Amino acid sequence: MTDLWTVTETAFDPKRQHHKETVFTIGNGYLSTRGAFEEGYPRDRRATFIHGVFDAVPIVVTELANAPDWLPLAVFLDDERFSLDTGVVESFERRLDLRNGVLARTVRWRSPGGRGATLVFERFVSLADEHLAYVRCTVTPDFAGVVEFRAALHGAMDNEGVAHWQRVGQGAHPAPSGPLPIAALHCQTRTSGIGWAGAMHLVAGGGRRLASEWWDADNAPTLTLKMKAVPGKPVGAEKRVAQWTTRDLPEAELVATAVTRVAEAPAWKDAFKANAAAWAIEWARTDVVIEGDDEAQIAMRFNLFQMLIAAPRHDDRVNIGAKTLSGFGYRGHAFWDTEIFMLPLFTYTAPEIARNLLNYRYNNLPAAREKARGNGVEGAQFPWESADTGEEVTPTWVPHFADRNKLVRIWTGDIEIHISADIAYAAHQYWRATGDDAWYIAKGVELILDTAKFWASRAEWNAADERYEYRDVIGPDEYHEHVDNNAYTNRFAQWNLETALETLAWLRARAPERAAQLTVQLDLTADRLAHWRDVIDRMHLHVSETGLIEQFDGYFARQDVDLAALEPRTRSAQEIFGIEGCNETQVLKQPDVLMLQYLLQDHYTEDQIRTNYGYYNPRTDHTYGSSLGPSIQAIVACMMGYPDDAYEHFIRAVRADLRDVRGNAGDGIHGASAAGTWQAVAFGFGGLRITPEGWTVTPRLPKGWTRLAFSFMHRGMPQQVDLRPEGA
Amino acid sequence: MTDLWTVTETAFDPKRQHHKETVFTIGNGYLSTRGAFEEGYPRDRRATFIHGVFDAVPIVVTELANAPDWLPLAVFLDDERFSLDTGVVESFERRLDLRNGVLARTVRWRSPGGRGATLVFERFVSLADEHLAYVRCTVTPDFAGVVEFRAALHGAMDNEGVAHWQRVGQGAHPAPSGPLPIAALHCQTRTSGIGWAGAMHLVAGGGRRLASEWWDADNAPTLTLKMKAVPGKPVGAEKRVAQWTTRDLPEAELVATAVTRVAEAPAWKDAFKANAAAWAIEWARTDVVIEGDDEAQIAMRFNLFQMLIAAPRHDDRVNIGAKTLSGFGYRGHAFWDTEIFMLPLFTYTAPEIARNLLNYRYNNLPAAREKARGNGVEGAQFPWESADTGEEVTPTWVPHFADRNKLVRIWTGDIEIHISADIAYAAHQYWRATGDDAWYIAKGVELILDTAKFWASRAEWNAADERYEYRDVIGPDEYHEHVDNNAYTNRFAQWNLETALETLAWLRARAPERAAQLTVQLDLTADRLAHWRDVIDRMHLHVSETGLIEQFDGYFARQDVDLAALEPRTRSAQEIFGIEGCNETQVLKQPDVLMLQYLLQDHYTEDQIRTNYGYYNPRTDHTYGSSLGPSIQAIVACMMGYPDDAYEHFIRAVRADLRDVRGNAGDGIHGASAAGTWQAVAFGFGGLRITPEGWTVTPRLPKGWTRLAFSFMHRGMPQQVDLRPEGA
Repeated sequence: MTDLWTVTETAFDPKRQHHKETVFTIGNGYLSTRGAFEEGYPRDRRATFIHGVFDAVPIVVTELANAPDWLPLAVFLDDERFSLDTGVVESFERRLDLRNGVLARTVRWRSPGGRGATLVFERFVSLADEHLAYVRCTVTPDFAGVVEFRAALHGAMDNEGVAHWQRVGQGAHPAPSGPLPIAALHCQTRTSGIGWAGAMHLVAGGGRRLASEWWDADNAPTLTLKMKAVPGKPVGAEKRVAQWTTRDLPEAELVATAVTRVAEAPAWKDAFKANAAAWAIEWARTDVVIEGDDEAQIAMRFNLFQMLIAAPRHDDRVNIGAKTLSGFGYRGHAFWDTEIFMLPLFTYTAPEIARNLLNYRYNNLPAAREKARGNGVEGAQFPWESADTGEEVTPTWVPHFADRNKLVRIWTGDIEIHISADIAYAAHQYWRATGDDAWYIAKGVELILDTAKFWASRAEWNAADERYEYRDVIGPDEYHEHVDNNAYTNRFAQWNLETALETLAWLRARAPERAAQLTVQLDLTADRLAHWRDVIDRMHLHVSETGLIEQFDGYFARQDVDLAALEPRTRSAQEIFGIEGCNETQVLKQPDVLMLQYLLQDHYTEDQIRTNYGYYNPRTDHTYGSSLGPSIQAIVACMMGYPDDAYEHFIRAVRADLRDVRGNAGDGIHGASAAGTWQAVAFGFGGLRITPEGWTVTPRLPKGWTRLAFSFMHRGMPQQVDLRPEGA
Repeated sequence: MTDLWTVTETAFDPKRQHHKETVFTIGNGYLSTRGAFEEGYPRDRRATFIHGVFDAVPIVVTELANAPDWLPLAVFLDDERFSLDTGVVESFERRLDLRNGVLARTVRWRSPGGRGATLVFERFVSLADEHLAYVRCTVTPDFAGVVEFRAALHGAMDNEGVAHWQRVGQGAHPAPSGPLPIAALHCQTRTSGIGWAGAMHLVAGGGRRLASEWWDADNAPTLTLKMKAVPGKPVGAEKRVAQWTTRDLPEAELVATAVTRVAEAPAWKDAFKANAAAWAIEWARTDVVIEGDDEAQIAMRFNLFQMLIAAPRHDDRVNIGAKTLSGFGYRGHAFWDTEIFMLPLFTYTAPEIARNLLNYRYNNLPAAREKARGNGVEGAQFPWESADTGEEVTPTWVPHFADRNKLVRIWTGDIEIHISADIAYAAHQYWRATGDDAWYIAKGVELILDTAKFWASRAEWNAADERYEYRDVIGPDEYHEHVDNNAYTNRFAQWNLETALETLAWLRARAPERAAQLTVQLDLTADRLAHWRDVIDRMHLHVSETGLIEQFDGYFARQDVDLAALEPRTRSAQEIFGIEGCNETQVLKQPDVLMLQYLLQDHYTEDQIRTNYGYYNPRTDHTYGSSLGPSIQAIVACMMGYPDDAYEHFIRAVRADLRDVRGNAGDGIHGASAAGTWQAVAFGFGGLRITPEGWTVTPRLPKGWTRLAFSFMHRGMPQQVDLRPEGA
């Protein structure tokens, strides 16, 4: 019977190394560690990312600094260093247990000198105590001699060649037991000045100890254990690490805290128990059961796992990057991916995480206001890419890949403005789903009102056509840049303004003092509100008589390409036609209009959605367009009554990183796609809808699925959905 | 009596740390190591640069990769690590002995725990064996206990945050004596794939050894020695390092070669003797004696020392960067600084070094031809900035310092074209001075002919004025960009073409086979040569009836600023007026026309030079303009008969890095300025001129100088010049 909770690799292919490092990422919402090997290889992309630990970097402004490496654990059989690229790998298996986040590797290796052993490496970072990480190795030798373990902390890490850390100090501290001290390392980022301290303890995990050493090597403090090797008798070593940053504590307390914490840390068995218990709670509320489709079941859990390890549980000054905490892609920057694709998962299953993520936006309102002011408009304009400060961190100019005399201007940070409405939408959705009035009054309403203020200020009055417009923007479909009146943007601006007015009315009734305070603070005069109403009323919306919505001004006049005729293809439409060429066609990276209709589905009739689905679905580059598309496409297909079409999109999304469908999984997990699969299941196949009265489901299970079950929170109460096909 | 061979520092000021690291750089023409401290500090800019070890980097294309660090030697008094930023520094002195390149530091230190000791650190990299480096420390404790030495090789070095190296491997190897093994480290650059291996040996230098350890810590292999501390009794440790790269040897031989070499390396005493002997030979031909002006004497030797340690003696595929091998500035790239400012020093004192540097250009002719071809012209166009391959490595776009939405276009790589003539000039000068016909026939003539071909091809025919022009260029005076018909450029293009015709005639007589071969290879048809003559005859040259030369078209019409009226000032004219504003004035970063007349002085009368000196001298930003200016300005002032004015320029040049006159010495030595001081002395104060008949001197000593003596080579024979003021 297949284990539906485990991602397995049964042979190691160095060519897939970076992809597999992403897949085998573990984490606990405080940090994540890619699945690089304990023993280290020159071209690995080993990385640990800690939420919020950003440091400056040219071109892309700032990035999550690859933290000092807690993982190193090298093994020597007599004097031969275990390495997959020497000797003979007689067997190899790696297993990530999604139930509890333990990554295990079993290798049967024969050294160049003929010594054989079975090595089992296991690691986890505790979900019960986010500062604790464990790695252990058990070696069963087939020779008599010495097995040596060397555990280190490595300070000199880099982000693909960018070195962010400087060593501050290191040393040894008394350990509660055993012959080895606790070793500590203290580093600091170069420009942001964030301090990090790690402390490690290395204990023999079985067998007879022959010797142990403490090596106070600069920036690579190392503890070693030599164990007697007896054929067939396992020997082991367990490394426990505690790590803290100045985001948690004052610099002066870092080292002592890490040392104390690791000194008191429980041994593997108890630490694992606490970790597993914490995971059990997560899975109880997050798991999705799919029966009749093992691949979908495992992949679904893998995607949920990846979101759960990236989600900040105790920090509301960080967000989840587009590539989560699992790779160098997009440098840890957060996009609308959070609000539109990831947040629903948390809003409906772990609302306190959703609240943390929304608080991050709330906390960054000052930077959003500054961005608006810099653009000569009012209110809060959120950055397209956001990092620690909430300032815009989208690169502006990047080198042309082929011609160094040329630069490519990246415009998204300037004109992909819909994100401000996306954030307002997410705040509103969170409130609707949770009924968290306290948060809404304290923070949510301010997000909605100040983004509305931005939209009204940014709207351009077209006197000739007597309408409000947003010109020169980029919508979610990034194949088309510099368009006027993107339907998604305009309608969401209108929604943001409508919702702001409703919210303000609600607030005035529900919390008049807060309403009065915000009225003053945000200058919500009667004139301003009247202007909002005018913008709402006369927004340019592109809806034809049949309900067909033109994606932007002039879209229907662009070249209509028969995408199906290009099949089978292995490249994106943009690669086939070129950036400029693709811009001249109707081919979509992702369907703006369908996304809009999904998000605001209460505002559209099924016929209207069907009309637009019929038009836009065949014009979308589903296979090589945006990775954000498929999970939403699956939902819309379900809404249209095509669960088997939906399944194609769903399975593409759910496989994206496991199978490296797009060839870039090595850069990190596609977070929006991963979290979007939960929406596809709940809102698509499950047909879940939240109504003012409560909630409903409309099951639309794809062929072969014999059961779909999931949970969600509704206004603070856990709800269970358990669906089986009709007649089953 | 002042020691006129030593640069001394008597107190350590952390604020001047980076400046002093540059000043205390040591080297041997294979590598240089900045004067960072053996024990290491988080914000130091410690660096070793090895000639030719370039690796890719964003924006500035490629840079000398800061090599794995051979220097680390930490000292512990009992368990307290010696560090200038803890405890009490009771005395501090650092001395660089220019005679033999030994850098010594004596520190009297008291630890936070109250242990006192005098520590003497000494280091040198052998000029006798360029792969060998030595550092030793002698500690005289005032306590009883343990003195520990830890020597390491650190692989994880970076260039101000750019990590170029990946660890390949490391290990221990048998040592010829002592309890410690030889430790080796093997690394590789990330993109260029250059391998580096270093091996180190650590031997007790006195006192009683208590213990020793070998720490095989990843990327930081470390050898330790614990010595018994007896009050008043010195104990020491000596670290010997050998290092090689794949520029010297195949990758497979690197480690074994380094290990063997260090195993066989002589102890300090003998190694120092060989090093000192090699230095004695250098100084015998290079030293300049100045009596009556101790500051000038020491500073002069310091500047010569800096050039001698940067000069490649056994490699003709590398050049000397604008900042030599002493800092991160200009990334190790070579400019015209080499040919115009540095080469004369070597041509006249160490011609085999000059030949190596010219061979670098010869070897890179293919890239220069490719650059010309890329620009649609013929011949060889040398890059403005050159690194390992001879391709253009000038950055094209750099981020605006204040506004990240803006980029600044760097145009020098596109249009500062005079460098091709500068190279031809240097080749010709080398030949004239050395009489090295064999080299000239084999390589020099090809440099001159193919650059001439470029100039003729690049010349634009102005039909209206019936003249050849070079439009849209930058001359040496970089305050004025995008000018037409820069006088320096046009006249040097003409000179290049004239010299090419003379050279070809000479070659046809002297080596007809080579002439015939080059005639075919470079397509030197009669038509082409006729065109060259036409370009020579009708070159636009800007000379007025009085002999005043206009620096470029329209220069005299630009705003005439009274620079003297701005004194005293602390900023460059460009900072005062802005880049655009300064461009509209007549203020010069350095005087093109005077430079031209100095270099081609046989072609101008004294009156003509005096006319131009009178015009351009007051319009030049001598203090904050180009660092290249002062030494040449000193020569021209001497030619004009103003040795005391000349002295002001000279002393500014000779102090530039010692006193950090421009505030950027931390980025590295101003190589052109440093080498230019030799020209100022020889051609300026000494008035040396090489004539077809031999050479003459016209002493013009500044006030107070009681003697000026120097040597130079003339056609293979050493010549001595020994000057005293009249009546002395």
